[in-house]
Amino acid sequence: MSTQPAHPALLIPGPIEFDDAVLQSMSHFSESHVGPGFVSVFGETLSLLRKLFQTTDPAAQPFVISGSGTLGWDLVAANLVEAGEDVLVLQSGYFSDGFADCLTTYGANVTKITSAPGSRPQLDEIEKALSAKKYKVLTVTHVDTSTGVLSELKKLSELVHKVSPETLIIVDGVCSVACEEIAFDDWKLDGVVTASQKAIGCPAGLSISMFSGKAMEKFQSRKSPPASYFASMKNWTPIMKNYEAKKPSYFATPSPQLVRALHTSLTQILAKPLAERFAAHRQASDKIKQAVTALGLQQVAANTEDQAHGMTAMYLPESVKATDLLPILGKKGVVFAGGIHKEIASKYIRFGHMGVSVLDPSRTDIDKALTALKEGLAELGYSKP
Amino acid sequence: MSTQPAHPALLIPGPIEFDDAVLQSMSHFSESHVGPGFVSVFGETLSLLRKLFQTTDPAAQPFVISGSGTLGWDLVAANLVEAGEDVLVLQSGYFSDGFADCLTTYGANVTKITSAPGSRPQLDEIEKALSAKKYKVLTVTHVDTSTGVLSELKKLSELVHKVSPETLIIVDGVCSVACEEIAFDDWKLDGVVTASQKAIGCPAGLSISMFSGKAMEKFQSRKSPPASYFASMKNWTPIMKNYEAKKPSYFATPSPQLVRALHTSLTQILAKPLAERFAAHRQASDKIKQAVTALGLQQVAANTEDQAHGMTAMYLPESVKATDLLPILGKKGVVFAGGIHKEIASKYIRFGHMGVSVLDPSRTDIDKALTALKEGLAELGYSKP
Repeated sequence: MSTQPAHPALLIPGPIEFDDAVLQSMSHFSESHVGPGFVSVFGETLSLLRKLFQTTDPAAQPFVISGSGTLGWDLVAANLVEAGEDVLVLQSGYFSDGFADCLTTYGANVTKITSAPGSRPQLDEIEKALSAKKYKVLTVTHVDTSTGVLSELKKLSELVHKVSPETLIIVDGVCSVACEEIAFDDWKLDGVVTASQKAIGCPAGLSISMFSGKAMEKFQSRKSPPASYFASMKNWTPIMKNYEAKKPSYFATPSPQLVRALHTSLTQILAKPLAERFAAHRQASDKIKQAVTALGLQQVAANTEDQAHGMTAMYLPESVKATDLLPILGKKGVVFAGGIHKEIASKYIRFGHMGVSVLDPSRTDIDKALTALKEGLAELGYSKP
Repeated sequence: MSTQPAHPALLIPGPIEFDDAVLQSMSHFSESHVGPGFVSVFGETLSLLRKLFQTTDPAAQPFVISGSGTLGWDLVAANLVEAGEDVLVLQSGYFSDGFADCLTTYGANVTKITSAPGSRPQLDEIEKALSAKKYKVLTVTHVDTSTGVLSELKKLSELVHKVSPETLIIVDGVCSVACEEIAFDDWKLDGVVTASQKAIGCPAGLSISMFSGKAMEKFQSRKSPPASYFASMKNWTPIMKNYEAKKPSYFATPSPQLVRALHTSLTQILAKPLAERFAAHRQASDKIKQAVTALGLQQVAANTEDQAHGMTAMYLPESVKATDLLPILGKKGVVFAGGIHKEIASKYIRFGHMGVSVLDPSRTDIDKALTALKEGLAELGYSKP
């Protein structure tokens, strides 16, 4: 049983509900960011991230930096791309557009393969683009939190390695790391950027990322200095290496409480095989998607194979407004999120199902949410056509 | 009495010891970053910051962004300066150099007025520099955490307004906000950037800043877009305005737990007149500096009027190594910090005295630290000459 005060189940696609032990770590007494206790915990946290990303390559480099998931885009844009270099952005929603804007801010020459809301660029289009021009970097949003569209990384990477093997494959994994399978080494990825508050299950406030040895080499061979100071890999790489070697080191003060909470959540995640965790998210997602379909609702992600397993974005019936439904769900103790994809924002809602809400058998969040959704729609006069 | 587990008193110049209620806020149950409860708390937090900075100018703009104090430098460098523009950096230690490096990263043309360790640029030198060239921005480190040197803001601002009234006055207040007086409006400052984990008394993880209406106007009139994405005022200003108006808004996910903790600490700080708070820090500092002098130790900040009130940097006797003394202090339950000013790093140590350690009458941190320091020096064979 949770020791948290009674509160609505937070079932938005991040932040998610957190485990009691993780929240308790957030109130750890104050300690020095360069003292042996914290240095050891931070070092272990970085090593645990290697396991979470399933990488054993010693040249791969993890980063944990105070910030939000968005900071990961700056890390890529300011370090792995130089002004005027070409980047191919696979657009599958609001967040792919954000990544593109960030890249442009730092001077990248961005080409976007766009797609209609709920779909994603297809391999043949991507192959054509990669054959037409040499790109330094390709970015893909593993799960676009605005649409719940899942991109297929393994086949994408095979294609990139076949057609344009020099191109770095950078994944926005904010809404996928720790709920969707990511085999960093096996799939030959070059970077995954994510955040703490989604399936990793630690409060917001940390940018978390992993870059391949190849990406770090490309970074080292830049002609110009990194284009950011706070998001500079030059400033952070020695710090991360030192912490992981359990040596105190300083560039900017990390958050001991957030890093302790991340250590707690990663320790919990890695106490069981990752395959079980991914399977549990798939099972919960299948159950939710079946229930949504049974209610007669369409998902934003139209094709079954494009549907994320940690969230479900669903169109509302024409007669039901999100601004009416969401407060009703709130009164029933369930918090869902509205739509944010600008072309369809008012027409759909989002249900996040990651972490303890799907994994902790003592929680009834998911069943409560499905019941609330059914009842809420009925209260607004909707019945399945 | 604190309900925290027994632990050494953290008396480094940040992070500091935190109040129980602040730490409890860190483990607040998960909530939506756009839900009414959190939006209200974030909005109030921004309004409380106006009081902390003693500004009533509605055109002044507060920012609270996940990150560290260092991110405040990027906020200044990427938004208030354009490539090739001139910035005058008043150098009073390690952190002034860091600010200069950050400005250079974004293309500023930096002129530094340097000073020997423990001192700071003098008004006559600054007047000469301001008369010789027109600077877009002047930066000053209110308290340089590496040396404990305090800069005098009021007279500096009077000088700048007399000699070069267009120049924006930007203060690095990481080690001064909430322990040194800062009258943002009265002193006509244009920006103060700080962090959560020092005298503000909230765990690390937040960049906190205030900019004047004049600074925001200069930002609005930039010719080029901001040079950062995560640290872009263009991206964050509407978000901060919306939160303060209690309207949900999204650019990047804030940390509800950290913002709740900040709300708790600001509410505590503002429950009493700020003048009392600053006076209490001065009194504690005077007592500490007298005790340090009585031990025969010299401060790094040579002149009394240049000495900060939230920390004391002190040279060690030649016979005593910091690497021997600091572990002895640790065994006595007191954590001090080593030196970090590169020219003198091994020769001195730093004692932070901010927040609850000096204000909470139930805490004996300061007396414990002074006793430990005296005993530790004696154990290493030192006696006052």
